Amino acid sequence: MERDDDQSDHVVLLNASTPEEVRTRCRRGEFTSPTCGFAGGHAQANLVVLPKEYAFDFLLFCQRNPKSCPLLEVLEPGHFSCSALARDCDIRTDLPRYRIFEHGVMTAEVSDITSQWRDDLVSFIIGCSFSFEEALVANKVPVRHIEQATNVPMFETNIACRSAGCFSGNLVVSMRPLTAADAIKATTITSKYPRVHGAPVHLGNPAEIGIADVSRPDYGDAVPVRDGEITVFWACGVTPQVVMAASRPSFCITHAPGCMLVLDTLNEELAGSA
Amino acid sequence: MERDDDQSDHVVLLNASTPEEVRTRCRRGEFTSPTCGFAGGHAQANLVVLPKEYAFDFLLFCQRNPKSCPLLEVLEPGHFSCSALARDCDIRTDLPRYRIFEHGVMTAEVSDITSQWRDDLVSFIIGCSFSFEEALVANKVPVRHIEQATNVPMFETNIACRSAGCFSGNLVVSMRPLTAADAIKATTITSKYPRVHGAPVHLGNPAEIGIADVSRPDYGDAVPVRDGEITVFWACGVTPQVVMAASRPSFCITHAPGCMLVLDTLNEELAGSA
Repeated sequence: MERDDDQSDHVVLLNASTPEEVRTRCRRGEFTSPTCGFAGGHAQANLVVLPKEYAFDFLLFCQRNPKSCPLLEVLEPGHFSCSALARDCDIRTDLPRYRIFEHGVMTAEVSDITSQWRDDLVSFIIGCSFSFEEALVANKVPVRHIEQATNVPMFETNIACRSAGCFSGNLVVSMRPLTAADAIKATTITSKYPRVHGAPVHLGNPAEIGIADVSRPDYGDAVPVRDGEITVFWACGVTPQVVMAASRPSFCITHAPGCMLVLDTLNEELAGSA
Repeated sequence: MERDDDQSDHVVLLNASTPEEVRTRCRRGEFTSPTCGFAGGHAQANLVVLPKEYAFDFLLFCQRNPKSCPLLEVLEPGHFSCSALARDCDIRTDLPRYRIFEHGVMTAEVSDITSQWRDDLVSFIIGCSFSFEEALVANKVPVRHIEQATNVPMFETNIACRSAGCFSGNLVVSMRPLTAADAIKATTITSKYPRVHGAPVHLGNPAEIGIADVSRPDYGDAVPVRDGEITVFWACGVTPQVVMAASRPSFCITHAPGCMLVLDTLNEELAGSA
């Protein structure tokens, strides 16, 4: 039954929705599905919420790892609105679903974090590759997982992030198979979007970055790699979730995978540096 | 007598010095002058050192004000080496001179901060416009204060920085007079260097950003503006010093004006985002 509701959400919201409509329906508990494809043209964001005692270390982690953790905004302790990115937004209610972690272990998945909110919580709003995928498609670079209507394949690598204070872990990458010509075109295009992961971190042999089998992603769905295609890898916003699992802060909230914060910010506004 | 020593430093070091030579002579107390023009081709950096209790707020201030405070590196509490930017560097000794502030008031100017060092101090290393000036000159854009061998003119503006925690204050800008054609060229060139202040923040009428008289800079030296030239304004690394004076943290150390940390990093490495 809930699945049917989700499907009708999709029909109603997918093409004509505004960011504010998506956020309002999330707030009312009417929309709890992944946000991919909604409010087209507008950026979506990853969310990480941590107690103030961890905030300097994690802000430093993001500063040192800008490709995996490109910060769009960080809120003051206890603040839950981010009007520069999303008008009248309450980040405690306006995402479809959240995950709560205690000491690195997920303890709940909820659609509202108002009852978990504390005055010492600091929210980190991090760019998402949905933004550059729109630019790829607009420039006629085919994106396999969009064509197949699945989630992008993601892999843990053997590339260590630069650690900061208590936070460390390996980089997670997303993969898109492309012809050589399109790999070059995609590199050029995404290099213009440093605030949403930027240029690829690797292309070619997956084993070089510790990926044994590109047909078995650690997160998301597998996509076929055709003859003559190269696998191209971008730093991925799932990295902070892996870092949280490895670094085990006492408390942490993130968005649920794919259930992003939909911003008023246009994808095009994210071309170039801040 | 000390002035003579400074002059001979200049003769010896100006053309042929390496970053390591400059840092070593600073460490020995043999070099206490401004670093402009030394170790050509290499980046130089602003320094702000704050107790850990202020570190999240100031890191957030830099994150929110990337044009005036473009971070090249932030060290963990108590750390004083920054090997990613400068080999075998000790930031407590390797700058020519430092300023010490207590509650926003300068209480000392010293050539070594080893005796002031504490395990809770966090060092912020911030990009400097010397890097993009080299690119301007290389691209035949004349830089007036370099031609005149004076310090760049700097002005406090009425543009409020985005505040963060306890830190707030107005933007400080540096000014370079240029023809219209060179203003366009300089904008294009400096836009490629977001990590060293990036594109201008204003051009044309100085009064629009609260500058009453461009012939009376708040810091540095005045330069002539010739007929047909436009004044062009860039965000300036002196901004954090003004913010410290306005925000009055209990303790703070900065570099003395013009007495920068000389890095191994090449200016060209700072083209593009991190």
